[in-house]
Amino acid sequence: MLWFTEYYKGEGMELQGTGLSMKVKSSKYLKTPYQELLLLETEDWGKVLVLDGAVQTTERDEFIYHEMISHPALFTFPRQVEKVLVIGGGDGGTVREVLKHQPKEVVMVEIDREVVEICKKEFPSISNGLGDERVKLTFGDGREFVKDKEAEFDLIIVDCSDPIGPSVVLYQEDFYRDCFKALKEDGIFVTQSESPFAQNRVHRQVVRELEKVFPIVRPYLVFIPTYPSGMWSFTIGSKKLDPLGVAPSALGKLYRELIEREGALKYYNPEVHYGAFAIPNFVYREE
Amino acid sequence: MLWFTEYYKGEGMELQGTGLSMKVKSSKYLKTPYQELLLLETEDWGKVLVLDGAVQTTERDEFIYHEMISHPALFTFPRQVEKVLVIGGGDGGTVREVLKHQPKEVVMVEIDREVVEICKKEFPSISNGLGDERVKLTFGDGREFVKDKEAEFDLIIVDCSDPIGPSVVLYQEDFYRDCFKALKEDGIFVTQSESPFAQNRVHRQVVRELEKVFPIVRPYLVFIPTYPSGMWSFTIGSKKLDPLGVAPSALGKLYRELIEREGALKYYNPEVHYGAFAIPNFVYREE
Repeated sequence: MLWFTEYYKGEGMELQGTGLSMKVKSSKYLKTPYQELLLLETEDWGKVLVLDGAVQTTERDEFIYHEMISHPALFTFPRQVEKVLVIGGGDGGTVREVLKHQPKEVVMVEIDREVVEICKKEFPSISNGLGDERVKLTFGDGREFVKDKEAEFDLIIVDCSDPIGPSVVLYQEDFYRDCFKALKEDGIFVTQSESPFAQNRVHRQVVRELEKVFPIVRPYLVFIPTYPSGMWSFTIGSKKLDPLGVAPSALGKLYRELIEREGALKYYNPEVHYGAFAIPNFVYREE
Repeated sequence: MLWFTEYYKGEGMELQGTGLSMKVKSSKYLKTPYQELLLLETEDWGKVLVLDGAVQTTERDEFIYHEMISHPALFTFPRQVEKVLVIGGGDGGTVREVLKHQPKEVVMVEIDREVVEICKKEFPSISNGLGDERVKLTFGDGREFVKDKEAEFDLIIVDCSDPIGPSVVLYQEDFYRDCFKALKEDGIFVTQSESPFAQNRVHRQVVRELEKVFPIVRPYLVFIPTYPSGMWSFTIGSKKLDPLGVAPSALGKLYRELIEREGALKYYNPEVHYGAFAIPNFVYREE
């Protein structure tokens, strides 16, 4: 009987004696130029991608992360979204969800080519959108990529790992400023923003840095069973459009159109759109 | 280095190869007449109570469970709540939260006297309400206790363990019918209703059984990091009052009055009150 345990650790992790264990049928280990990669076949979670010791993607619960990093921002637009930038997102799940909104172009900038290649082979149901002709896949540093962009994107999604290794720079104010500049005048930025329970200080710092840059900043919560504590967050930074300002009737119409065209979503719905922005008191308590 | 791992198992558990591990400083084991009890001192979670192998209560996250099993129902009453029945709830945390609404009387019926005695000694910050003069503590079978009650309680809270061992009968339609009868004409019932992710079938069955008995049935969700998958639910069954029908202005007023009198809550607030009832699609998907 083989078990994999992720012992929670790393920059900003407030749980230092806790771990999640999964029964494993088989495993494959390799080192990419950027990180350590472990591919597991598990009993409960299907195939699981682990980077630098942290579970990134499981076949069983990936729909939650990928729907919820994408749809709240995308459904906030009252108009057709044309050009979307995804930074990170090597498994392709975020691009899969973005494509459901029929953008003209999705640019994805992932630093680690090997992650994409493994996901194309091992997670076809997650990565299948990467072959779409509207998707421009670039390998490089997302931080550098946005630096010279101006008023180009409707939406920028930062689908990155924890603030260690290659992702550190994606948690900093300078990067958020460059993203602001790279967005159109009604553009929206969204980033994964860690666990408000297990990495409370990091989460709050992301929100604080975004508030220096964007006039509208809205953190929201989702259940991700295989991430530390299961309580996860994303944060939207927006120039004009407020995800909480969308009229329920307009959202309902857009939502019904999308699921008629693309099939059912498994997590996101209009009630979840509004409800996810309700934050328990302890997250922003005075310290 | 000592670690405790809860390997998820038992009636209705859909995760069969997953566990949560906690670093342990010391532990104490005993057998009560009803269950196996393990008391842990842990690095991250403070003291932890484990019954029949399942984590019940940790000092670090107990506030979430106890606030959220209590306040959504209690804040649904437009009037003073007079008499509350708590079934189970041996650690006393639910009673502590109920008392913040100044009821005249709280009856608690717990089957396992030893759990209460250990919690009084080991978890004083959780069990401190049990000594309040308004609290009538009875040891016995909650199922039997409600059978001959009629129109007596404003609110019945079922704070029980999983549907194995002594708690099985608390998941059945007959019990819900007796609770309906034991409630006043505008009474509310609330029960913990397992993880919609990890015990989806059990959760849905609780909701279905309650729908046979109560005209208004409202499941809602909370983040509980130390319970299987971290995604947990409670379900309200109500005769007349709808937790989603409370006017925001009225709720805001009641909430401010309570926190001025009792101090801040750590999880519940009016946004969370409404937001918790937003349920992701997969929970009630067609099978």
